[in-house]
Amino acid sequence: MTTGKINVSVENIFPLIKKFLYSDHEIFLRELVSNATDATLKLKHLTAIGEAKVEYGNPIIEVKIDKEGKKLHIIDQGLGMTAEEVEKYINQVAFSGAEEFLDKYKDSAKDTGIIGHFGLGFYSAFMVADKVEIITKSFKDEPAAHWTCDGSPEFTLEPSDKTDRGTEIILHIANDSTEFLEESRIRELLSKYNKFMPVPIKFGTRTETLPKPEDAADDYKAETIEVDNIINNPNPAWTKQPADLTKEDYQDFYRELYPMQFEEPLFNIHLNVDHPFNLTGILYFPKLSKDLQIQKDKIQLYQNQVFVTDNVEGIVPEFLTMLRGVIDSPDIPLNVSRSYLQADGNVKKISNYITRKVADKLKSLFNENREDFEQKWNDIKIVLEYGMLSEDKFYEKAGAFVLYPTVDGKFYTIDELKENFKDKQTDKDGKLVVLYAQNQDAQHSYIEAAQAKGYEVLLLDSPIVSHLIQKLEGDNENLTFVRVDSDHIDNLIKKEDSAISKLSEEEQEKLKVAVQEIVPSTTYTVQLEALDSDAAPFIITQPEFMRRMKEMSMSGGGGMFGMGNFPEMYNLVVNSNSDLATTILNAEDKNTQENLVKQALDLAKLSQNLLKGEELTAFVKRSFGLIK
Amino acid sequence: MTTGKINVSVENIFPLIKKFLYSDHEIFLRELVSNATDATLKLKHLTAIGEAKVEYGNPIIEVKIDKEGKKLHIIDQGLGMTAEEVEKYINQVAFSGAEEFLDKYKDSAKDTGIIGHFGLGFYSAFMVADKVEIITKSFKDEPAAHWTCDGSPEFTLEPSDKTDRGTEIILHIANDSTEFLEESRIRELLSKYNKFMPVPIKFGTRTETLPKPEDAADDYKAETIEVDNIINNPNPAWTKQPADLTKEDYQDFYRELYPMQFEEPLFNIHLNVDHPFNLTGILYFPKLSKDLQIQKDKIQLYQNQVFVTDNVEGIVPEFLTMLRGVIDSPDIPLNVSRSYLQADGNVKKISNYITRKVADKLKSLFNENREDFEQKWNDIKIVLEYGMLSEDKFYEKAGAFVLYPTVDGKFYTIDELKENFKDKQTDKDGKLVVLYAQNQDAQHSYIEAAQAKGYEVLLLDSPIVSHLIQKLEGDNENLTFVRVDSDHIDNLIKKEDSAISKLSEEEQEKLKVAVQEIVPSTTYTVQLEALDSDAAPFIITQPEFMRRMKEMSMSGGGGMFGMGNFPEMYNLVVNSNSDLATTILNAEDKNTQENLVKQALDLAKLSQNLLKGEELTAFVKRSFGLIK
Repeated sequence: MTTGKINVSVENIFPLIKKFLYSDHEIFLRELVSNATDATLKLKHLTAIGEAKVEYGNPIIEVKIDKEGKKLHIIDQGLGMTAEEVEKYINQVAFSGAEEFLDKYKDSAKDTGIIGHFGLGFYSAFMVADKVEIITKSFKDEPAAHWTCDGSPEFTLEPSDKTDRGTEIILHIANDSTEFLEESRIRELLSKYNKFMPVPIKFGTRTETLPKPEDAADDYKAETIEVDNIINNPNPAWTKQPADLTKEDYQDFYRELYPMQFEEPLFNIHLNVDHPFNLTGILYFPKLSKDLQIQKDKIQLYQNQVFVTDNVEGIVPEFLTMLRGVIDSPDIPLNVSRSYLQADGNVKKISNYITRKVADKLKSLFNENREDFEQKWNDIKIVLEYGMLSEDKFYEKAGAFVLYPTVDGKFYTIDELKENFKDKQTDKDGKLVVLYAQNQDAQHSYIEAAQAKGYEVLLLDSPIVSHLIQKLEGDNENLTFVRVDSDHIDNLIKKEDSAISKLSEEEQEKLKVAVQEIVPSTTYTVQLEALDSDAAPFIITQPEFMRRMKEMSMSGGGGMFGMGNFPEMYNLVVNSNSDLATTILNAEDKNTQENLVKQALDLAKLSQNLLKGEELTAFVKRSFGLIK
Repeated sequence: MTTGKINVSVENIFPLIKKFLYSDHEIFLRELVSNATDATLKLKHLTAIGEAKVEYGNPIIEVKIDKEGKKLHIIDQGLGMTAEEVEKYINQVAFSGAEEFLDKYKDSAKDTGIIGHFGLGFYSAFMVADKVEIITKSFKDEPAAHWTCDGSPEFTLEPSDKTDRGTEIILHIANDSTEFLEESRIRELLSKYNKFMPVPIKFGTRTETLPKPEDAADDYKAETIEVDNIINNPNPAWTKQPADLTKEDYQDFYRELYPMQFEEPLFNIHLNVDHPFNLTGILYFPKLSKDLQIQKDKIQLYQNQVFVTDNVEGIVPEFLTMLRGVIDSPDIPLNVSRSYLQADGNVKKISNYITRKVADKLKSLFNENREDFEQKWNDIKIVLEYGMLSEDKFYEKAGAFVLYPTVDGKFYTIDELKENFKDKQTDKDGKLVVLYAQNQDAQHSYIEAAQAKGYEVLLLDSPIVSHLIQKLEGDNENLTFVRVDSDHIDNLIKKEDSAISKLSEEEQEKLKVAVQEIVPSTTYTVQLEALDSDAAPFIITQPEFMRRMKEMSMSGGGGMFGMGNFPEMYNLVVNSNSDLATTILNAEDKNTQENLVKQALDLAKLSQNLLKGEELTAFVKRSFGLIK
């Protein structure tokens, strides 16, 4: 048996690092600016603990394009490197300076925000550059060094005459990467990855007009100066304490995150936890439309103020991916598979924490200002209803703030609803019947009929409402939901008193047969009812169960398999106590009877939005004739 | 100045390779099975050219789980390695055997389908395993070798007593990766990545019942045997010549690709090009619904029969991402940024080639069997219309096969449409007016009115139709599209003959004022027209321009900014020649006049689907009263 050490051949691995280190080449800028930030923060730490006897000052990082020279410069004023350190940190691929630093200054450096995890970031420069130079001067009293490498494993190292502290990286951009010499492209990348990094980043200059002096002469001409254009906000709101932020600060930060978003967010949730994991962030509830898909992936994930991704799938519970905002946590493992992420204990804890925080915030918003909460309800309900269906932990807490609006604009919690409706809307079997509409316009005549009886009608118009009420019925004994047009109102909430029919049983049977002969039996089941004589003579209804199962089946999951394709079936309720019923029964001839039934059926169909196309055109033409 | 060589420190890079080589750890299995495939195909090549004097046979690859031992085995019967080759290929990270092989056998090995690009694939095993073993026996007459490495850079190499040719890789699965010991997970991965790889892959066995012998006794009991369970199809349809495939073969392959898809595809396009790039594949047109988003990302991208991704953004023109199928090309650069991909010349050529092939196929389908093409039109139009808007090259070719259906189920090309409509539908200014409806039901009465004049009405119901007709009008002089309800039919196609009014000018003015006093002026502009006396008395229309701009603005892009939020405005056309007009004019009192106008307005609103909610309920109640 032989033993040995695996040999990583630099000639072979170097081209791989260059081309495949990151699938997205643009990452190089994030890595280099992160390195510059680390170099600056390390110096800050060393001066703070007295180990570096230099003035820290107000260091910035500068990014500069030299389009003619095809070069990109990244310049920091951090701690710099001596020639010996260049040998150690640069010439040894994968030797992370940050880890060594954090190791050495373990106790004092805990909250410095130093980013680097391993030493490969610098080499990402070769993904876009043919040749890379480092010119660097340490804060220590040693000569500056100039390192050059043309992408082969060979490098040169020579002294440099650089006198100011810090490091300048010069990328000689390769021909296939000239996009990174465009100002707009670099601005885009800085704005994407470095917008909230903790050291100011200068990219170009801009002109500012000096204030007019008080003693300005009449022919005073405005004077302008060039000032550094700082592209980042080193102290973003989420790094501050909630107590130090006003409502306006949160709104300003929202605009910073989404400059193209004109609508204000409804409210925000500040996340801030140290233990058992570290996470800060601010989530915003935007106004939501019903199209859920397009609104996802707006939450940005950061690690120590460096943008990582806007895909937070697996980290944030799915129903909250419709929110906006930022999450910053060094404790989320990256570059792992989604399935691993979902199984990771820490990530699971983070997800649960976010769910709990959101539920708590909603509860306190509801309690603090119910009126305001009610006004915002329609804009947030879709998230919360979806959350109730998908996260049991959220469902348990939701009773305290989830609202059920009525068609009149009142809002009840589930408990209030039970309390308020129980006297009027409990049927003879002791079931509390909650009436609801899904479309106030389309179901208007049915709502009116229910209100005439003194009942309340909820307006539940979310696309997933059939799933939600199914769940509520399962969890609340003796509670049942019926859509207001699923039967005649007297049948929806059945009371003890039985109706008295004007017609004899024989007459009723005769009337039923007459109507059945005329209306198509494939679509309508004729059902005679002895209702108030002034209730509508013909009413079309659709049983709750069938309709709900169809809806659930169509909106995916639940319901009964394949029911989405069932034909529409309706009941035709004929009010045998109406005058029209008598008129039909006693019609002088078959032809008159048929015309009466057809006109009445057309009107019932109109109320249920079923009269369309050719039938509607014929109805309108006939009706114009009637008023001539 | 000093020079030197950058040093890749193996102690530091090894953990990185282990954890960060691929963001998705599951890739390891694809890599190892690819290696096994390469080893098999290399042997095939060497036996074919006589360099290996062994029997090639019918080698397979086996994947085996040892759940108790926490091991995963990948076993091939390929060319194997000698101890010396293990030293060379395994102990030197990033030394690709495949490249060396292809280099050496440049001419003869061109079409062998060998996959490996660089030698990192094997090391992906360490993403999921603590310890990896290789037991391998070369086809050459040399002893077998046994290599072991526990994830540190140290390895051991010793002789093995393996006697059969080939390589066995044994992964000792790490505790954080036990998912890869689950049969269902491995089956899922094999099915995702290796379903069409060119060497049969065995995963477990299954039971098969032997056929009953003809001379079976009466008490014959069916006999079963265990057979290898081969999970892949080594010869997928796209690798064959179109001439060798029947329609059924294409349909079978579609079901292989999408086992959960019950609907048959409408037709397929076989792609096959060698120069200037190498690409094969089969694209299918599925039945499409109007929801474009959910249908994307169904095309699978392969390289030499290894699945790579189902994100073909940038490779396939966007409008074709709604198709299904496979594309296999070794010439598509992977692991590069999307912006680089879009700028890459080769990729651009591939995208153009696909567009051209699809257009050519559509043209030939149209020419070969127009009736069949017309029947499929509604299921494919959305892709083609979107293609016309987004790809100029496609638009140029689309004239030959894009169809414009009428409400009667006839289909015209743009040229046929011009030819057939020009006599009847050219207006007095020489403009050819194309009438269209977007909803046959909702616009029924207007369609009927147009047909009564002998005009044809197109049915254009795609969501992007307003953009498309805007483009067609721009490219076809003297062609104009108007929706059938955008004015009274006599105004939509104006002819020379002027209408004769029954009413005097004075009476007309009186009538107009009377109607204006009753209908709300914020919504309706009253417009008196002397139409046929039996045309509808009141008609509500909405001008084409406004409506189209609103639609374009709402469906994103084009139109006029912000017009999506404009209030709805209509014209109320009053037919001054109708009997009702006279009746209104001569009404005995204001009250009667108002009732007449209101009822007529309600009926006009019904035809335009504008009578809703409370108004509709009141109308129905009133109308029930009328038939009592």
